[in-house]
Amino acid sequence: MREGAEVGDRRHHMSSEEFRRHGRQIVDWIADYWECVETLPVLAQVEPGAVRAKLPQEPPVEGRPFDELMALLDDVVVPGLTHWQSPNFFAFFPANVSGPSVLGELLAAGLGTQGMLWATSPSCTELESHVMDWMTRMLGLPDDFRASSSGGGVIQDSASSATLCAMLAARERATGFACSLQGLRAPLRAYASTQAHSSVEKAAAIAGIGRSGLCAVDTDPMLRMNPDLLAAAIARDRKQGKEPFFVCATVGTTSSLAVDPVRAIGELCRSEGLWLHVDAAMAGTAALCPEYRYLNDGLEFADSYCVNPHKWMLTNFDCDCFFVADRAPLLSALSVLPEYLRNQASESGAVIDYRDWQIPLGRRFRALKLWFVIHHYGIRGLQCQVRKHIALAKEFAGWVHDATDFELAAPTTLNLVCFRHRGGDAVNRRLLDELNGSGKVYLSHTVIDDRLTLRLCVGQPRTEQHHVRAAWELICSMAP
Amino acid sequence: MREGAEVGDRRHHMSSEEFRRHGRQIVDWIADYWECVETLPVLAQVEPGAVRAKLPQEPPVEGRPFDELMALLDDVVVPGLTHWQSPNFFAFFPANVSGPSVLGELLAAGLGTQGMLWATSPSCTELESHVMDWMTRMLGLPDDFRASSSGGGVIQDSASSATLCAMLAARERATGFACSLQGLRAPLRAYASTQAHSSVEKAAAIAGIGRSGLCAVDTDPMLRMNPDLLAAAIARDRKQGKEPFFVCATVGTTSSLAVDPVRAIGELCRSEGLWLHVDAAMAGTAALCPEYRYLNDGLEFADSYCVNPHKWMLTNFDCDCFFVADRAPLLSALSVLPEYLRNQASESGAVIDYRDWQIPLGRRFRALKLWFVIHHYGIRGLQCQVRKHIALAKEFAGWVHDATDFELAAPTTLNLVCFRHRGGDAVNRRLLDELNGSGKVYLSHTVIDDRLTLRLCVGQPRTEQHHVRAAWELICSMAP
Repeated sequence: MREGAEVGDRRHHMSSEEFRRHGRQIVDWIADYWECVETLPVLAQVEPGAVRAKLPQEPPVEGRPFDELMALLDDVVVPGLTHWQSPNFFAFFPANVSGPSVLGELLAAGLGTQGMLWATSPSCTELESHVMDWMTRMLGLPDDFRASSSGGGVIQDSASSATLCAMLAARERATGFACSLQGLRAPLRAYASTQAHSSVEKAAAIAGIGRSGLCAVDTDPMLRMNPDLLAAAIARDRKQGKEPFFVCATVGTTSSLAVDPVRAIGELCRSEGLWLHVDAAMAGTAALCPEYRYLNDGLEFADSYCVNPHKWMLTNFDCDCFFVADRAPLLSALSVLPEYLRNQASESGAVIDYRDWQIPLGRRFRALKLWFVIHHYGIRGLQCQVRKHIALAKEFAGWVHDATDFELAAPTTLNLVCFRHRGGDAVNRRLLDELNGSGKVYLSHTVIDDRLTLRLCVGQPRTEQHHVRAAWELICSMAP
Repeated sequence: MREGAEVGDRRHHMSSEEFRRHGRQIVDWIADYWECVETLPVLAQVEPGAVRAKLPQEPPVEGRPFDELMALLDDVVVPGLTHWQSPNFFAFFPANVSGPSVLGELLAAGLGTQGMLWATSPSCTELESHVMDWMTRMLGLPDDFRASSSGGGVIQDSASSATLCAMLAARERATGFACSLQGLRAPLRAYASTQAHSSVEKAAAIAGIGRSGLCAVDTDPMLRMNPDLLAAAIARDRKQGKEPFFVCATVGTTSSLAVDPVRAIGELCRSEGLWLHVDAAMAGTAALCPEYRYLNDGLEFADSYCVNPHKWMLTNFDCDCFFVADRAPLLSALSVLPEYLRNQASESGAVIDYRDWQIPLGRRFRALKLWFVIHHYGIRGLQCQVRKHIALAKEFAGWVHDATDFELAAPTTLNLVCFRHRGGDAVNRRLLDELNGSGKVYLSHTVIDDRLTLRLCVGQPRTEQHHVRAAWELICSMAP
């Protein structure tokens, strides 16, 4: 037996052989999981604390065998999971994943490279710029969003962070590039519709604007922001000495997939000198298809834009694609340059350092998984997904439309159906609880026209017509 | 041949069989990469634009074969990588990874679960609370940081985000829980030493405090914050009508691993009513060992604390462990509650919803990789790493100390050696460029006492004594 410090240390690591073996084990475990996930209760059927109660109280002093971990995974972790990859998952929004994406994530983990600066891993930065430029072509986004222009794209962890970055860039521009240095001095005003994502409110809180500094603009009956009311709000605020600076328009609200009139809002923003951010987190993916390209209407007025391949484009969370038409305000808002990060490449101005495009400093090689997905599916394969999900949602909407006890609460233009039983809130609440409690499907809810509304969102790669049909039959069978 | 929409869609997906096969391929690729990474140039030897120039200009219309991706990976991506997992990587800080961590990340990707709420995947939340509680025991952190107390821990993507969250919580508490609603109104003042991480400045910019709202407190000759100067700065600011609210103390600065006197700073913060955040991003890991537990001295005064297992604890980026002693200000600063996220478990108050503990809404199942690491290594295995790296750094420091042409620029207390050639800045600059240009090692630099200083940080699992010895011999051979 060998001795000494080096051997003592080596002993603790997983050997190359063990890594290969356990790696295959996990790959197979995932493949098996995907094959059987539809047989598991979609929504975890556990009480608070149940998972923790079954885990070892104390951290192990000595390392434990891998097989023990796998047993705990099966016995403790899996029963406490809500299965986002189940074909019967229809709640919230999809967070769909795919083989190529998972393998891209695995590769990024194995490389363990840090992309904070171009110099700390040129491939990490350049592949990211490259696939982000690809995204502009795939989705038909404005040329200004390309890295070769005044703007460019960057992968953020989420649309929440994208919205925050957009708001910070807007704040910087509105204050003559002074706010990041001097701090916030004037009462700035931001605008979004009453249907906008909660992350706009969260961003306002973080940026020091305050939740009450965000004006919630009313919508039309189709739940789209009313641009006349936006104009009136801006005028009123200016009269009161407040300073409007930022508007978030939503292309596909979380609640009902309503699409704000971006062109009208954009023209107003342009004439008022306000920053326009367009949040197309889920719905933006549909612009892969020419027939849904209309979702981009007015984007030439957008100062920033985001869409999440980690929602509906088969790419693991986290992968939000965030674009700006002009990178200067963003960089001014977020740049730092400590001595220990100085390097020739950065100072030459010839490279992008993505640490200045985001909140954190460090960054994973997230472009790999997006690259793997685009390479594997091609534009055609991704379009096919979008079309299929929309077709299934429309089919479901047809059944709702034809049922006497149910009604549609919003038009089904993409992959989300908002509907309710005509029996009122209590009936719908009970129906939702029973459906989700059955473990057979998972739906979520919203409130539309002050009434509790069920949401069925189709976005899983494994969801087929028979799953949607079974969901509808279950709903009908559980309805009073 | 089958026909129809379902088949058309299925065709594009990677089959279960293909996923298993390509999964093995990537696992083996990673194992091979780790085995040979020390033979590759550590710092990428490519010019700006070189990687992009070799990638296909247009995104593929039809999906492409996986083998083509693997070929591009080898031919285009790898030559543009800086190899953070090389045993010859001594720059910045380690971002070390390990077999169990990579497999935990893989599993999280395959499950594709969203942990924004307890209800959206109870295991994701509960395993996170559990391993974060483990971390408090492993590192000897205060009881207040446990989930069962008034505080608790959460995994953030980075120490930058942890610092921002700490500052937002502090801002909230300092404004009587009003800032997140009403916005920032008073000129708040934050404090950190001149040696603190750039993320403190970035957080001040984001939070609307402004970079100039952050007071950089001078240090003693050992580069530790001087608490008397901190007290004087606070008194001066109060006199000028500014409102001190936040102090960031650093346990292990990025530049030189200096440790601020947390106890003295903490007592001052307590008497002045200021929030104390302790940033122990890399060095905090050393507290795994009883002999380095002194790094925690004074932590009972900390309102928040962070340490990064993704630096020196063999866990893939991103994994920053962020703890608060009282969760109320954090939740007040970051909570949102749109209708579509309401659920019984949240409303019962019996569960943690981590979306309110962080900037983004969505979150991956990051606890898995940390769990895998702790389970595999045990406390003993992790201690062994820390001790080995520190021993190697001290050995290197001894060689520097004994060399007539070189000098140490700061004491080597942990795994970082700050040193320089006695020939002055130009000599050190040239030496650094030649070392890194050789591809044989990668070191970074800082400025200490106004002089360019080389940094050699030991933190790779594959770094053995002979690597450190070879680095020193290379340095000596290239020195004038």
